[in-house]
Order: sequence, then C-alpha cells, then structure tokens
Amino acid sequence: LTTTITCSQLSPALGDLEHNLTMTVAAIKDAVEHGSQVVVLPELVTSGYSFATAAEARAAGMTRNDSIFDDWIAAAAGAAVVIGGFAEVDEAGTMFNSAVLLDPAGGRTFYRKTHLWDREKSVFAPGNELPPVVPTQFGAIGLLICYDMEFPELTRHLALAGADLLAVPANWPLLEIPPIGEHPAEVVIAMSTARVNHVAVACCDRSGEERGQRWTQASTIVAADGWIASQSNGQTLISAELDLEASQTKSISQRNDLFADRRTDLYRLEDAAEHD
Amino acid sequence: LTTTITCSQLSPALGDLEHNLTMTVAAIKDAVEHGSQVVVLPELVTSGYSFATAAEARAAGMTRNDSIFDDWIAAAAGAAVVIGGFAEVDEAGTMFNSAVLLDPAGGRTFYRKTHLWDREKSVFAPGNELPPVVPTQFGAIGLLICYDMEFPELTRHLALAGADLLAVPANWPLLEIPPIGEHPAEVVIAMSTARVNHVAVACCDRSGEERGQRWTQASTIVAADGWIASQSNGQTLISAELDLEASQTKSISQRNDLFADRRTDLYRLEDAAEHD
Repeated sequence: LTTTITCSQLSPALGDLEHNLTMTVAAIKDAVEHGSQVVVLPELVTSGYSFATAAEARAAGMTRNDSIFDDWIAAAAGAAVVIGGFAEVDEAGTMFNSAVLLDPAGGRTFYRKTHLWDREKSVFAPGNELPPVVPTQFGAIGLLICYDMEFPELTRHLALAGADLLAVPANWPLLEIPPIGEHPAEVVIAMSTARVNHVAVACCDRSGEERGQRWTQASTIVAADGWIASQSNGQTLISAELDLEASQTKSISQRNDLFADRRTDLYRLEDAAEHD
Repeated sequence: LTTTITCSQLSPALGDLEHNLTMTVAAIKDAVEHGSQVVVLPELVTSGYSFATAAEARAAGMTRNDSIFDDWIAAAAGAAVVIGGFAEVDEAGTMFNSAVLLDPAGGRTFYRKTHLWDREKSVFAPGNELPPVVPTQFGAIGLLICYDMEFPELTRHLALAGADLLAVPANWPLLEIPPIGEHPAEVVIAMSTARVNHVAVACCDRSGEERGQRWTQASTIVAADGWIASQSNGQTLISAELDLEASQTKSISQRNDLFADRRTDLYRLEDAAEHD
C-alpha cells in the first residue's frame, strides 16, 4: 500500500490574499487530479513571507476560522489531506507563523512555528506548544515549519510520538550555493532526519522572488530509508508514492532498532531541559 | 589559526595484534610527517572487527595500560593528538568496543561505545557512560564510535558540552550502495550533525575485507558549516585544515543561534528519559 505525496512549490504574492487563494486552490485541485493523497504547500503560502513588520503581516493575517480552509477542503474533494502555512492572527492581534493540516474526514489541526528564523522574530510571536502528530487515513503526520526541522529534539519528538511522515511547509531562503554535487543543506538535514528516525519527510519550499529575496526551490520528499524519492529541480509539482507504514518499523538490522537502541538511561535530561 | 586533521583509513588484520601495532605506528608517523595535529584511526584498529564471539575478541583484548598506547604517543612525537579504537578487556574479562584519546600533553581519555551495532551485541558489553569531551591544545574533542553518531541525543550532548570536533573511529560495513550521486548514509548523517550543531566532524572508516565483510571506505572530515572538507575515495590518508575555533560560535544569522534558539522550555524530558 502506497500513499501519493505531493509538494506544490508555489510562488505566493506578498500580501495579495486573493491571488494566493486562487493559486492554492488551483494547486490542490491539480495535485488531487494527479492522484495526490497528501498535499503539502509552502510556509506562509496565503500571505507571502517578506514582511517588514508585524503590522504589515497583520494586514495579511487570518484566523483559524478563515474561509480559505473551507476552499482548500473543497479543492481536495475528499481525496487528500492538505497541509499549508499561513500568517495567523489571534484574538489579541498577535501574529504567528502557522500551519494547518486539513483532514478529508473533517479534522483541522493547527501548529504555530516554535523556532523562528531571523527577521521573523520581528514579525511573529513564537508558538508555545510542541508540534502535533495527526492520525489520518494515510498514516500519522507530524507538522514542522522550515527552521524547526533543524532541531533534532523536535524531529525526534515527532518520530517518538508515532509520526509516519513529517510534513514541512518551508520557505528556504537562498543564502549560499552548495558545493558542486551537494544538495542544499536543508535537504541534507531532511535526509539525515529521515534516516536516523526511519520516518518519511516531505519539505515544500517556495519559488519566486520577494523584495530581493530568492529561494532554494528544492522541495524534497525523502523516504523513511533516508533516500530522496522526489526533488524539485525548478518544477512546481513534485510527487512520490511512499509506503508510509514502513515508518512504523524502526528495525535496521537483525539486532538493531533505532528506538530500542536509544540509551535513555544515559541521555542527560539537562540537554533537553531549560538551563538556568 | 587552523588545525590539520587526518583520518587514516587502515585495514587491520583480524586478531593480529603485532601487524596492527606496526601498521598503526607507521600511520601515525606518516600523518605527523604530513603535518597532522589530530590523527583519527578506525574503530577496533588494534584488533580487527569481525569477531564471532566474545572469547575470540578477548584473545585480541587489551587493557587501558597496554603498551601500544605508549607506542602511539611516541609515534606522535609530541605533535599530535591520537584517537583510535581498540578491543578493551576489563579486570573481569568483560569486552568493550572502546576508543582512546591520547594527548601529547600526557592525558589519556577512554570511552566505551554505548550504541552497539548488530553482532557486536554478542561480543561486547555496551559502555555505561556518556562519551567525554576532552580539552586539548587544538580544541575540545568529543569522542564517538561509529553507530553512536546516528543518535542525535548523543551528538547534541557533545556539542552542548563544548566539543569543537567530534572524532569518530568507525567501521562502516558496506550494506547498501547509495543511489547515484549520493554520499553513503553515514556521510549524510555526519554532514547534518555538523550543520545543526555547528561542530566539525571527522569520521575514520576502515578498508580491507574480513570474513566476507567489506567496508564503505568513505572516511570524511566535515567542517562546522556542514560541508565536506576532505573525503576518502579509496586512499588511506585524508587530511583537512580546519578552523576549530569556528565551532565555538553557534550564530548562523543576524538573529539566530543554534543553541540559544533551542526551545528547552518545550522539549519533552520523556523523549530523553527512560520510558517505563
């Protein structure tokens, strides 16, 4: 049994909610027509990324009750789980860099990014809850947003909590050109995360240019064995058929299990806990 | 200021202590003549790897007082730190898959592998102490052995404890051929470990064949930025000049610090601690 996973490496227009609504609905329909059962959209795909201030972001903010999520569910036509990022505004007007998982069965699960990147710290408040693992008919899906994935504490937590797939809406800013023959660093981290946790990882980057910022445009779907199943070389839609049940075994040799081999008797609680 | 780091991807002969002594002393001398200041030798380089039983390993076992370490120190001629693996036997006859770090200033630090791979579980007892971080004139060096590196709890611990370099004696069994264009999975993990902790990593694999087992032969030195500084394509000696002080800053953008950004207020102690 395989699940078809798609990343739609879209190019949202900064602050143009209407454009981004039309674009995302079309992308979800397109993915579902291609047989996709899990559709991952970029970080902040409803709003764009490069806000200078919280006030500017707030003008593109949405609540958890925004009708765009109804439109995404309708576009998925009961066939696919949809995960995507949006600029969330809460009752108090506080902005969060958030993601939603929409289940065709009706559930809506939200997550607020806990590890903010660079200028995001001037725009968004960090989330104060660990990311969820959401059971779906296709498997258990853990949510992360972009820079979150670079914290092994968080990826390990999701894997231990039973995630079969980590869905990672991202905007990977183009900050360095990798050495010749190498993947972007974010892809290396995604591959290693998959490998050491035996969990699938789907990272959806974005494209386009915003206020001079370009993007890595390297959306990547990694199988639980750590090898790349599909990767964007500039194209918008990438897909892979993965056996997500494979993530449930952590056995990697006759005598090794990635979770059972953990030396939880030795790991220092101080490494995880707040330092004084 | 840079430090010259060498990995000597040797081929020990199973159970032939004399051969392996001569070989390792020559390799250390060769590395020091090439200007090396940190010499990393493979896992179990004094003994070979493919023991069928603890009794067989015991015949190649050494205590922490073995004279081979004096020979290694003499070969380093006061110029280099030497790290290498050996089959350790304790007073009770228990076998450990161990590593030693020999400092030219005189210190000797030992570590017993805590995460055993496959048949090692039939031969060795696991160590019951976390790996050390050893201050040396070239920087703080953390020790790991092979499969240990695949546990982010352990690599994070060493980085948080101040390691500038992770020295990783390894025997990477050749179990799969990576997809075309990809590094072996162990190298991907080493690159990601370096990147998310901003710490240098030097993995010394072995060569040769033992009882039908071949090796990946992909010794790799990774800089703190996560990119490969030197990698074996079959040759025995690889070297890289690294600025190990670079590992001391965890700043990766104007507003991001890999350690300060950790959400230790959220990470679950249960993820690190013993489960019932």
